[in-house]
Amino acid sequence: MVVASSGTLPRMSESLQRYRMKIAYDGSQFHGWQRQEPPDGPPLRTVQGEIEQILTRLLRQPIVTCGASRTDAGVHALGQVAHFDAACPIPKERLAEAINGRMPDDIDVISVDPVSSDFDAIRDVVNKEYCYRLHNTVRKPLVERHCVYHCWTTIDSDRMHEAAQQLIGEHDFAGFAAADHGRTTTVRTIHECRVQRNGDDVRIYVSGDGFLYNMVRIIAGTLVEIGRGRFEPSVIEDVLNSKDRRQAGPTLPATGLCLQWIRYRQDESDS
Amino acid sequence: MVVASSGTLPRMSESLQRYRMKIAYDGSQFHGWQRQEPPDGPPLRTVQGEIEQILTRLLRQPIVTCGASRTDAGVHALGQVAHFDAACPIPKERLAEAINGRMPDDIDVISVDPVSSDFDAIRDVVNKEYCYRLHNTVRKPLVERHCVYHCWTTIDSDRMHEAAQQLIGEHDFAGFAAADHGRTTTVRTIHECRVQRNGDDVRIYVSGDGFLYNMVRIIAGTLVEIGRGRFEPSVIEDVLNSKDRRQAGPTLPATGLCLQWIRYRQDESDS
Repeated sequence: MVVASSGTLPRMSESLQRYRMKIAYDGSQFHGWQRQEPPDGPPLRTVQGEIEQILTRLLRQPIVTCGASRTDAGVHALGQVAHFDAACPIPKERLAEAINGRMPDDIDVISVDPVSSDFDAIRDVVNKEYCYRLHNTVRKPLVERHCVYHCWTTIDSDRMHEAAQQLIGEHDFAGFAAADHGRTTTVRTIHECRVQRNGDDVRIYVSGDGFLYNMVRIIAGTLVEIGRGRFEPSVIEDVLNSKDRRQAGPTLPATGLCLQWIRYRQDESDS
Repeated sequence: MVVASSGTLPRMSESLQRYRMKIAYDGSQFHGWQRQEPPDGPPLRTVQGEIEQILTRLLRQPIVTCGASRTDAGVHALGQVAHFDAACPIPKERLAEAINGRMPDDIDVISVDPVSSDFDAIRDVVNKEYCYRLHNTVRKPLVERHCVYHCWTTIDSDRMHEAAQQLIGEHDFAGFAAADHGRTTTVRTIHECRVQRNGDDVRIYVSGDGFLYNMVRIIAGTLVEIGRGRFEPSVIEDVLNSKDRRQAGPTLPATGLCLQWIRYRQDESDS
């Protein structure tokens, strides 16, 4: 792992600037966000790994990024956020373009802005939104097959939307998390959950202050079971109360999931 | 090449039925429609090759398909049409599903219907439509990058639409064809050409009785030059009159092109 320790950069540390970077990516060709360097093989292709390699080469100093969401393999992002520190030789107006010009086709660096050194991409999150996309028709998705989940039986999106309203508020979401979530508390606050249909395209939007491992994919799987009539809408409350993962629906595939946006406390004091 | 000659199928020939098949595909992972079997290597992955292999295995007889449009590598289709002859052991109601269930993710067989033996997928075409998609914003396309062409300078779609109207009617399109078009006549009839913008998404739809090699991609390239103000709209008439390929715009990449639909004389007598 490359670390910008003060040992390797003794003089630069004083002039280090923190940057906040907004990134979109098509996750289908990545092993997720997080850098992965197996001891017995070449590094896997990850979004963080790709970005750090390019930044390190461009800025001629070892760069480590800290990303807000460790999206899984196959998950997409429209508004991932990461921070990094660098003594940057490139004027800030040209930085995003310089970085983006070096990125592969499936990563788009939307913005890179200098921020206060106390900005933390993980700690300062106040709200983030995910979207789960369903392709709800018998016909296979073609060009969109990497960013939707194909659900060929008809689902009732109004019924799903209504059931989803039970998720809103502060709850213990242990029943909607994979067993290996690795968190000490499973209490989270969901601010909004809406299910919208546009023709064959059904989207489940969920926003909240944080999500447990696989939580959105399990919520989506449970709502789909409600939408196709296999589960009653009351199952949501049952899973919240029992905290029993087995009562919820299946974990839908990563392919339909997209991190839409992240809001920070710093953004709120700005406006 | 596998050919269903009467020699190999002496008894079946009497019971051969002709089928008309409608196919959609994401062309990004194919070397085009047409079967390609280089003498010095393994067959290339093509849509025709893939379909024939699956049909041959499913129907237990060598199947050769005849496709209406030999789309290039990277070109997509929503409504390609092909015909083939087979002594089919599967009831016709279940045939499309049986075939489609065996297709890879990037091919969707929409329908397979028995037709009169004089139906010819190439000869009987009366009208077909192509669409060329442009992603017209500075931001890179991500999930859609395999089915759009990224044009980051702003283009005036109204100006393009107006200019495109000069293409309508019977013309010699030699100036809008690649040098190696290999056709004896370059006269074609364009029935409709419209340019539509929806946000950053600009689509050029062209329909006509037939198209020369690269014709839609050169028309799109010329309209884009008009849209960004480098060419005057009158260039269309100039290219038609001069038949000079060099006066037209560039051939845009295959990635933005999609065969939308094909109409046959048999369809018209039906309605």
